Amino acid sequence: MNSTATPIKITKPVPVFKETKQENGIGKKMKALVYHGAGKKLWEEKPKPVVQNDTDAIVKIIKTTICGTDLHILKGDLPAVTEGRILGHEGVGIVEETGSAVTDFKKGDHVIISCVTSCGKCVYCKRGMYSHCVNGGWILGHLIDGTQAEYVRIPYADNSLYHIPDRSDEEALVMLSDILPTGFECGVLNGKVQPGNTVAIVGSGPIGLAALLTAQFYSPAEIIMIDPDDNRLETAKQFGATQTINNSKKNAIERVKELTDGIGVDTAIEAVGIPATFGLCQSLVAPGGVIANIGVHGKSVELHLETLWSQNIAITTRLVDTVTTSMLLKTVQSKKLDPKLLITHRFKLSDIIKAYDVFQHAAKEKALKVILTND
Amino acid sequence: MNSTATPIKITKPVPVFKETKQENGIGKKMKALVYHGAGKKLWEEKPKPVVQNDTDAIVKIIKTTICGTDLHILKGDLPAVTEGRILGHEGVGIVEETGSAVTDFKKGDHVIISCVTSCGKCVYCKRGMYSHCVNGGWILGHLIDGTQAEYVRIPYADNSLYHIPDRSDEEALVMLSDILPTGFECGVLNGKVQPGNTVAIVGSGPIGLAALLTAQFYSPAEIIMIDPDDNRLETAKQFGATQTINNSKKNAIERVKELTDGIGVDTAIEAVGIPATFGLCQSLVAPGGVIANIGVHGKSVELHLETLWSQNIAITTRLVDTVTTSMLLKTVQSKKLDPKLLITHRFKLSDIIKAYDVFQHAAKEKALKVILTND
Amino acid sequence: MNSTATPIKITKPVPVFKETKQENGIGKKMKALVYHGAGKKLWEEKPKPVVQNDTDAIVKIIKTTICGTDLHILKGDLPAVTEGRILGHEGVGIVEETGSAVTDFKKGDHVIISCVTSCGKCVYCKRGMYSHCVNGGWILGHLIDGTQAEYVRIPYADNSLYHIPDRSDEEALVMLSDILPTGFECGVLNGKVQPGNTVAIVGSGPIGLAALLTAQFYSPAEIIMIDPDDNRLETAKQFGATQTINNSKKNAIERVKELTDGIGVDTAIEAVGIPATFGLCQSLVAPGGVIANIGVHGKSVELHLETLWSQNIAITTRLVDTVTTSMLLKTVQSKKLDPKLLITHRFKLSDIIKAYDVFQHAAKEKALKVILTND
Amino acid sequence: MNSTATPIKITKPVPVFKETKQENGIGKKMKALVYHGAGKKLWEEKPKPVVQNDTDAIVKIIKTTICGTDLHILKGDLPAVTEGRILGHEGVGIVEETGSAVTDFKKGDHVIISCVTSCGKCVYCKRGMYSHCVNGGWILGHLIDGTQAEYVRIPYADNSLYHIPDRSDEEALVMLSDILPTGFECGVLNGKVQPGNTVAIVGSGPIGLAALLTAQFYSPAEIIMIDPDDNRLETAKQFGATQTINNSKKNAIERVKELTDGIGVDTAIEAVGIPATFGLCQSLVAPGGVIANIGVHGKSVELHLETLWSQNIAITTRLVDTVTTSMLLKTVQSKKLDPKLLITHRFKLSDIIKAYDVFQHAAKEKALKVILTND
Repeated sequence: MNSTATPIKITKPVPVFKETKQENGIGKKMKALVYHGAGKKLWEEKPKPVVQNDTDAIVKIIKTTICGTDLHILKGDLPAVTEGRILGHEGVGIVEETGSAVTDFKKGDHVIISCVTSCGKCVYCKRGMYSHCVNGGWILGHLIDGTQAEYVRIPYADNSLYHIPDRSDEEALVMLSDILPTGFECGVLNGKVQPGNTVAIVGSGPIGLAALLTAQFYSPAEIIMIDPDDNRLETAKQFGATQTINNSKKNAIERVKELTDGIGVDTAIEAVGIPATFGLCQSLVAPGGVIANIGVHGKSVELHLETLWSQNIAITTRLVDTVTTSMLLKTVQSKKLDPKLLITHRFKLSDIIKAYDVFQHAAKEKALKVILTND
Repeated sequence: MNSTATPIKITKPVPVFKETKQENGIGKKMKALVYHGAGKKLWEEKPKPVVQNDTDAIVKIIKTTICGTDLHILKGDLPAVTEGRILGHEGVGIVEETGSAVTDFKKGDHVIISCVTSCGKCVYCKRGMYSHCVNGGWILGHLIDGTQAEYVRIPYADNSLYHIPDRSDEEALVMLSDILPTGFECGVLNGKVQPGNTVAIVGSGPIGLAALLTAQFYSPAEIIMIDPDDNRLETAKQFGATQTINNSKKNAIERVKELTDGIGVDTAIEAVGIPATFGLCQSLVAPGGVIANIGVHGKSVELHLETLWSQNIAITTRLVDTVTTSMLLKTVQSKKLDPKLLITHRFKLSDIIKAYDVFQHAAKEKALKVILTND
Repeated sequence: MNSTATPIKITKPVPVFKETKQENGIGKKMKALVYHGAGKKLWEEKPKPVVQNDTDAIVKIIKTTICGTDLHILKGDLPAVTEGRILGHEGVGIVEETGSAVTDFKKGDHVIISCVTSCGKCVYCKRGMYSHCVNGGWILGHLIDGTQAEYVRIPYADNSLYHIPDRSDEEALVMLSDILPTGFECGVLNGKVQPGNTVAIVGSGPIGLAALLTAQFYSPAEIIMIDPDDNRLETAKQFGATQTINNSKKNAIERVKELTDGIGVDTAIEAVGIPATFGLCQSLVAPGGVIANIGVHGKSVELHLETLWSQNIAITTRLVDTVTTSMLLKTVQSKKLDPKLLITHRFKLSDIIKAYDVFQHAAKEKALKVILTND
Repeated sequence: MNSTATPIKITKPVPVFKETKQENGIGKKMKALVYHGAGKKLWEEKPKPVVQNDTDAIVKIIKTTICGTDLHILKGDLPAVTEGRILGHEGVGIVEETGSAVTDFKKGDHVIISCVTSCGKCVYCKRGMYSHCVNGGWILGHLIDGTQAEYVRIPYADNSLYHIPDRSDEEALVMLSDILPTGFECGVLNGKVQPGNTVAIVGSGPIGLAALLTAQFYSPAEIIMIDPDDNRLETAKQFGATQTINNSKKNAIERVKELTDGIGVDTAIEAVGIPATFGLCQSLVAPGGVIANIGVHGKSVELHLETLWSQNIAITTRLVDTVTTSMLLKTVQSKKLDPKLLITHRFKLSDIIKAYDVFQHAAKEKALKVILTND
C-alpha cells in the first residue's frame, strides 16, 4: 500500500470481504504481530491459520516487512482494521498447505505474496484492476489476517501468489509484494514516463524511491527528485536521480523551471499524500503532461482548474493492482532492477516490535525498508 | 472555445503572438463586431485585413457564430482581449487572397476556419497539441482580430483552414470551427468513451450537447444527461441521451447510482465549468473511470483525493486542439453526425448585435447556436 | 471459431488439455451430435456429462448453433478432433449443477457459453488472451465434448460462462458465444476501426457480416463489402454496408481506389481465409492502415513486402479471446447491436442433421446462422 | 533509409515531388558525389544549390555518411534515381541561407538534416507519418539532390532540420539523420518493446545494431541477436545484447526456444530484408507477439497464415518517419544513448570514393558507419 504522512479516511465503501468460515481456534499456535486498537500492538500467540476455502493456501513466512500503511493503521486511521487483526501485507514464504482448487502451487513452493488478493474472475480482475477485486483487493493485514506472522492464509492463491525462481535472492523479492509495483504502476505507468522525457518525483521516501528506480526502465532524460531531507536526496542521487531539489531550502518551482526551459515536467509523480505536495505537482507539470498520484491522501486538495483547464493535462490515481509483478520479477532476474537498494535494516521476525520502532523514526534512522526474517 | 458560467482568469502565460507588421489602415473598409471594453461592443467600420505574412490568407466570411467565450470577453473576464479587437473565432468563408507561402489554398476556395491557429512546425504542433502552438493557438478574436466581420486574416492558413467539399451544407460546417471538436476532443476522446460504456454529461448547453452528439460515434450503452433546465434535457433526449436527470429536482448522485447498479459511470464529462458540477463528476465516476473536463473554470475546485486516491481514475483537461476537424468532416459527409441540430437561430451578420442579445438569453430563447450570414 | 473455405492444418502445438478424470459412463443418458471420423456424424445417445473438477459446471443446452469450423471438422481437417467427440462450441443454457469451487453460478442460472474456455489464472488469461489459455482455449467440441447436445460440461465455469439478464432474447445471445466476438475482436478491434475511417471487409459470409455489424460501433464513414455473391452483398447492404462490390464481376481494387481517392482503406478485414482474399487485402490497404485477418487459413500466403515494407502498415491475426463478451452483451441490451439479424433458420435440436444439411449449402439456402432449440 | 541485402523494386507509386524551379546553373560551384547510372559514381563539380522555394534552406555540410540504400542506388535498384543525382540523405551542417518563409532557422545555425522531408501540413504529416508526406518523404539523394556534397538544399526546412545544442558532439549526431530513428521507430516502437520482455533481432548490421541500442530504452529482459557473422555478434554483445546466436552454425529456432521456455519472443525485429530472415522471425515470435520489419525487401515472402492465423500476432512495416528525432536527441544529451558506437571509420568528404569502397566491403573492413568530414 502507498506511503503517506496524513490520516486517511476512506469514505467510499471498501470492497466487501466475507470470511466464509470462522477461523479455527483449535489446533496449532503461532506468533504474530497483532493490532489492539490505536497505538497498541503486541507480538503474541495466535492460532495458526487453516485452509477455509478451496482456493486458499497457507504460507509459512520466510521474510516480511513493514509498510507506511501499517503505521497509519497503528495510529487508528483505518477503522476497518479491527482489534485482534494480524498486520502486514508483504512477504515471501513457503507454501505449507493448499485448498483443493489450488492447482498452480503445492507444498514446498517458494512464493512472493502479493499485497493485493485477486479472485481472477470478477469484472475488475478481468480488466486487470485487481485492486478493486470484488472478492479481494487489499485485504491482507486489513480485513483479514496478514503477513507479520509465522503463517498466513492467502485466499485465491493461484491468482495472488507468484513462484520464486530457483537461486533468487528472496530477501530482495519482498520488495515485489507492494512497494515496487506501487511505485511502478501508480507512478511510472500512470505517469507515462517515456524515453527522453523529464520527470519530477515529489517525495524521496521509500515509495518515491521505488518510482525512481522503476522510472529508469523507460530512460527518461531527467529525473528530478524533490524532498526536504538532504539524506533522502543523497540516496535518490545514488539511485539514479539526475537532479535533486531540497524544497525546504530552495523554491522547487523556480528550480524546475530553470531545469526545463520554463516549460515544466512531462510527468510529476506525487509520492507523499498531502495537499502541499499535490499542489507543487500542479505547478510543475508542463502542458500535455501527467500528474500521477501515488500518495495516500487524508484530506481533499485544491485543484487549480482555473489555470489547468486549458493545459491538456491528466491527473491519475491508483491503488496498486500488482498486475506487473511477473514483469517486475523478470526485470529483477535480468538485473535491470535491484530491489535490494531499498533495504536498509534487518531484524528477526520475533524482534518486530524493535523493527517498528526503527521504521517509525525512519528519517532519524535513515531507514527505507526493514526486513524481518522468520528463522 | 469552451462554454462556461464563470469568469476565467488565465494566470499561466498565454502563447505569445507577435504581429510582425502593423495592420494596414490604408485601403478598403469593412464592417465588424468590435470590443470596446467590458460590456461594450459595436458593429462598426474597420480596415479590411491584408496579408501580413507569407503564410496568411484573407478569408471573406460567409457564415459565423457566437461562442460562450465571446460573452466572457464582453464581461471583461479576459484581460488579454484589448479594446478595438474584432471578436469571433468560428466561421466558414471564401479565400480572398493568400500569402506567397500558402500552397494548399487559393482565391475562391470555400473553407472552414479553425478556432485554433496552428503553425505546423513547433514542438506542440508536432505532438498534435495545436492549442499550445507557440506561434498560434487560440488567437482569433482574442489576441488578433476575429471572424465576426466581413473579412478575417488567418495566419498559417495551410494548417488552420480546411477545404469544404462541393455540395456541402456550409451552415452546418460552422459547427466544425470549435464546438464539435471541443465536445469531441475534450469530452469524448479524453473521456475514452467506448462501446457498451456508461457516460454522464453534466451540463446540457451547446458544448454538452456537442459532446452528446459525438459520444455516439462510440456506441456507449447509456448517456445520462444532467442539467437543471427541463428544456435543455428535452433537447438532449432528442439528440440521443438515453437518460436525463434534472438535478434541480432530483439527487443526481442517487439517480446515477440506481442506473448503474451502484457503481457509477465509466466517463463523466464536465461541460459547465463551476466547482459544483466538477464536484458532481467526482461523485459519479466509477473506479477505473475518467472525468473529462470541458468547462472553462474561473475558480479552483476541491478535489477529493481522500477518497479518489485509491479509485484508479483519471481527470483530464484540454483546450481544444482541432486535430479532429478532418475526421469530423468525414463523419458529417457520411451522415454519422448532423451538426445542424445545434443551430436554433439565424441572423444577418449585420444584425449581430441582435443575435448577441438572443444568445445572452439562451435559456429563455431556447437558443443553442446562432448563425450569422454575411450576404 | 472463425469461418473459412479451406482446410486448416494446425502445425503449432495446440494448448494441451488434460481431462483429470475419466468421463463417467455410468448414469444418465442424453442425445448429442457425435463425430465419427471424416464425413460421419450421428445424433445419438451419450452419457450425460458430470462434474469432473471443482471448477466445472454442467449446463443444459437451450439453444445452440453450427459454425463453419464444425464443417471443417466433419471434413476431417482437424485431426485433433477424435472419433466419438460431441461437436459444437456455441450456445445458451441453464446451469444444472456446479463444482464446489464455482461461486458465481448456481443451478437455474441462464447463461451464455463462451466458445473459449478460460482458467483466469494462467499467464495468457492474465493478459486477456483467453484463446491461448494454457488450461483451456478453444476446447469445446474440439478437445472435449461440446454444445450440440442436451447437456455440456463447462470447465472453469466462473470464467467461461456469462449471466443472461432477465427478459433477454436468449436466441439472439447464442451469437455472443463465438461469431460476434470473433468479428469484433479479430476484425474490428484489431483493425482499429475509427470514426470517419474507411473499412473494406472481404467476405460477406456470417463472420464478415459479424464484423460489419460491430464495425458500426465506431461510426466509420465507409464500410465496403466485397464478395462474389450478390445475395450476400444484398444482406450486407441491409446490415449497414455503405458500398458493396461483387468481385466476380468487377475489379475490386479499381473500385476501391475510385471510392477512396486512390488511397485505399484504413482497415481491410479478411473474412474468408484463402490466399486470394488475403492478397486482395494487401492491394486495398492505405499507407498507415491495418489488415485484420479473421479467416482460418489452410495454406501460406504470399506477402508483398517488396512494396509493403515502406507502407507503415500492420497485419494482425487472432483467435477470438471472447474478452468482449460482457461488453457486447451491454451493446445488445442497449440496442446498439441486433444479433438476431444473423439468424436465418431455426430447427429443433433433434433435427440437427437436417440443420447441418442446410448450413452446408449456405449460399443456396441463403443461410447465415441456424438456431437449434432443445425443447 | 533501411539497410538491405537485396534489390528493391518499388512498384507502388512514390510520392510525387515537383521541383518548382530549374536548378540555377549560373553562379557558384561545389563538389558532390554524383550518380551516373548503375555502377557509376563520380566526385565532381556541380552548381552550388540555391533557394528555390520560400521554405527552403541551403545547408553547408559539415559531416555526412553513407547508407546501405546508397549502395542499392549504385547497383541500379532504384530507377527513380536518375543520372546526375547527388546522393546522400544524412548529415549535419550549418545553415547558409534561408527562404523568406523559414522562421525557425537562420544563417549560422548548426543543424541535423533529417533523411525525411516533411511539409508539416499534408494529411500524412498531421498524422506523424512524415515518410508519406505528399510534398516530401524520402526525397534527398533520391528524387532531389542529397547530402554527399559541400552544400545541400533542404525543402521545408522548418520541419526537416533540427537544431544542434551547443557543445554537442556533431559527428555523433549524424546518426540521428536516419539510422537511429529507423532502428527505433521501425524496430523498437513498432515492436512494442517493453520492460521485462524478450526481443530477438535478426541481422546484426548497422540497422540491427541501431535497434539494439534503442531497444534498451525500454529495459527488455533479453535481447537475442542473430547473425551469421561472429564479428558482428561480438559487436552486438558490446552494444548490450544479452544473447547472441550465429545462425550459420546453430539452429536459431531451437536456441531461441531453449532461451524462452519454448514460447518464443515477444518482439522479433527483422533487420535484413530477405525472405529467409523474415521467415525466421515467423518461427521465433510468441503468441501475442510482434514481428517488426525494418529490412528493405526486394521480393515477396511466404507468410505462414496456416499457423499464424490463430497466434494473435502483429506484423508491422514502416519507412522511418523521423518523428522521434527530437526525442532521440534528448536521450543523446542525457547520455542514455551513445550514437558514436556506430561509427567505425572516418574520411575527408573529398575521399568519399574511398569511403564507399570500405563501406561496400563492410564485413571484411568491420565497418558499421563511416563519417565523411567536409573541411
